[in-house]
Amino acid sequence: MSQNIYDDPDFFAGYSRLPRQVHGLAGAPEWPALRAMLLDLTGSRVLDLGCGFGWFARWARDHGAAGVLGLDLSRRMIARAKADTDDPAITYRIADLETVALPGAAFDFAFSALAFHYVADFDRLVREVHRALTPGAHFVFSIEHPVFMAAARPRWTVDAEGRRTWPVDGYAAEGERRTDWLASGVVKHHRRIGTTLNALIAAGFAIRRVDEFAPSAEQVAQDPGLAEELERPMMLLLSVVRDAGR
Amino acid sequence: MSQNIYDDPDFFAGYSRLPRQVHGLAGAPEWPALRAMLLDLTGSRVLDLGCGFGWFARWARDHGAAGVLGLDLSRRMIARAKADTDDPAITYRIADLETVALPGAAFDFAFSALAFHYVADFDRLVREVHRALTPGAHFVFSIEHPVFMAAARPRWTVDAEGRRTWPVDGYAAEGERRTDWLASGVVKHHRRIGTTLNALIAAGFAIRRVDEFAPSAEQVAQDPGLAEELERPMMLLLSVVRDAGR
Repeated sequence: MSQNIYDDPDFFAGYSRLPRQVHGLAGAPEWPALRAMLLDLTGSRVLDLGCGFGWFARWARDHGAAGVLGLDLSRRMIARAKADTDDPAITYRIADLETVALPGAAFDFAFSALAFHYVADFDRLVREVHRALTPGAHFVFSIEHPVFMAAARPRWTVDAEGRRTWPVDGYAAEGERRTDWLASGVVKHHRRIGTTLNALIAAGFAIRRVDEFAPSAEQVAQDPGLAEELERPMMLLLSVVRDAGR
Repeated sequence: MSQNIYDDPDFFAGYSRLPRQVHGLAGAPEWPALRAMLLDLTGSRVLDLGCGFGWFARWARDHGAAGVLGLDLSRRMIARAKADTDDPAITYRIADLETVALPGAAFDFAFSALAFHYVADFDRLVREVHRALTPGAHFVFSIEHPVFMAAARPRWTVDAEGRRTWPVDGYAAEGERRTDWLASGVVKHHRRIGTTLNALIAAGFAIRRVDEFAPSAEQVAQDPGLAEELERPMMLLLSVVRDAGR
């Protein structure tokens, strides 16, 4: 069973106050880049892995999806997501992405936002998503960037000359990272970019696009705190397609 | 015209003394990983971009290649490469990878070792390589990893708590980096991993494998200095295939 920090009351309270939870997709600076990776969803059966409050599920329905299945480990998340919609074409279910079993060839598009760095067995998960998608279906997701996650102490460092840099160490040592974010001891799983891409390729996905999110000048002007995202990559956005022939 | 630091006498003298130039492929710790990406070269027409002293060209011929064209910007490199072989199936030519024009569909395999971070217009180069390859041909290359190249001062940093880390800043700011390596002011071109991969995909290549080189335990035992390559990635190794249908 995966760590379920999202059902910790203090964590959940803090998480619920994040701009991206208060304002939804519009509160996520990477959303324009992620949205640019999406095809027309009209008529699609959509799978959302780690759906949280259901912001993307509702967006997908507003943009023509025939139906959405949203999965999340957190009981609190799913309860809030269910309370926020009365759309009968959206289904929410509690599920652990480490062990989830999905129906075969049941979805035309899969999506996930900032959930997979909580998953230890990424290989298993992408094989399962591949099986759940129809041939030619797209799969778009964001994940914390390994440069952001790798270091033993992932926080800005000031060197002897006063230069502020982001530290990297232990990059090749993949596996568990414990970090303090809204709560102490949040468990994440560090994988190199190559490991993530090779797992997707091995499962039968073709890589379509790899973006390391950086804010636009307009975004930095509106929110100067985003400038640090130009210094080191925090998020990796991937668009892949399920091979037609496999 | 690209900077031609390799024809600087001091640089060339220092470069010629590097283990990987003295010992060839066996002196390059990433060679086993790069070699694992290669298919059988028997009967192949091979293109080597940035061939240096011709170590790979001679290896390819020893492993069945029908012929090799090696290109390098450096007159000194090409002179030494020519002097080191009398194989009529190996051709060496001075060429600038910024502007090189290649014959169409003339090669079954393309290779490059640690040359492309000197190239400013990578998009043009990969389109040219794509055009030069036959459908289904593989293209394997190494390049300096952007995490190694990005920072304004790319050297180990010790923080206030005595922790040694590799600094990252300016990651999103792609473009020229000047560094001191064997000579001062060596010009390299920083591109994010995503930018490199997207250029290949846009040109019509499918991504087969992405490795961020890390030494094995045996390699570190033999050469303890390699341990730092576990802390931050220095090299990116890529294997791509020219789409059969494009």
